[in-house]
Amino acid sequence: MSAPVTLTICRTCRPEGAPEDAERPGAALLREVVAAVALRDAGATVEVKAIACLSACSRACSATVSGEAKFGYVVGNLSPLDAADLVGFALAHAESADGIPPWRARPQVVRKNTIARLPPHGVAHALVEEPASAAVDEVQEGA
Amino acid sequence: MSAPVTLTICRTCRPEGAPEDAERPGAALLREVVAAVALRDAGATVEVKAIACLSACSRACSATVSGEAKFGYVVGNLSPLDAADLVGFALAHAESADGIPPWRARPQVVRKNTIARLPPHGVAHALVEEPASAAVDEVQEGA
Repeated sequence: MSAPVTLTICRTCRPEGAPEDAERPGAALLREVVAAVALRDAGATVEVKAIACLSACSRACSATVSGEAKFGYVVGNLSPLDAADLVGFALAHAESADGIPPWRARPQVVRKNTIARLPPHGVAHALVEEPASAAVDEVQEGA
Repeated sequence: MSAPVTLTICRTCRPEGAPEDAERPGAALLREVVAAVALRDAGATVEVKAIACLSACSRACSATVSGEAKFGYVVGNLSPLDAADLVGFALAHAESADGIPPWRARPQVVRKNTIARLPPHGVAHALVEEPASAAVDEVQEGA
């Protein structure tokens, strides 16, 4: 069984142009993500949390995926319609050993809208180097 | 004494328009950050690491700040000239209890170019809520 991951949704995200007097798209995304996790019966693997701001306001709606001692991911430009894909990505993250799901396991919306990934704190990983040993190679995710 | 934090610099970042045959700005930023940490004698608090990609290529140069059980931050649009400010932010992150430095403690370049923050995995925090309890309030960082 995969180690559980946490999917944190910014519930106040409102992309530019979204009406101010309607439900916030972030809140709708949160609702749809909770429903998608239930639909896939994935609650034991994907824990959903809400937050008031992920400091990614210019690329609303936004969400993060995190796991113990794993790379964390931030995804932006999401709409409530992307809930199922976001949960699919969280499941792929849970299955990966280090939090870096293989490219083929990432839904298109995640591939196109990954804002950043964060190395886990205090955990050794082949990608994380001492400054002195860093040589510049052409290594970019998905390239 | 502050708990140590890790500053991870993408050493392959090259902002659009930067010459292809010169040292990568990411590698130069890494070099300048190592020098800035030494200059401030901050090596016991700020550990510097290099990585080949933070998946934030469109907002190069990029860096992350992380600490045990703390919010992690991703900062973009950095130049090698921002090294001292980046180290200043890492020190403020180290001093903060939860990884969210007070706004006044954040250098201007960090305020303007924070790409995202990630809640720590598996750690309770007042900002991280259960989906059911989430009410939409106007709470945005720095607002």
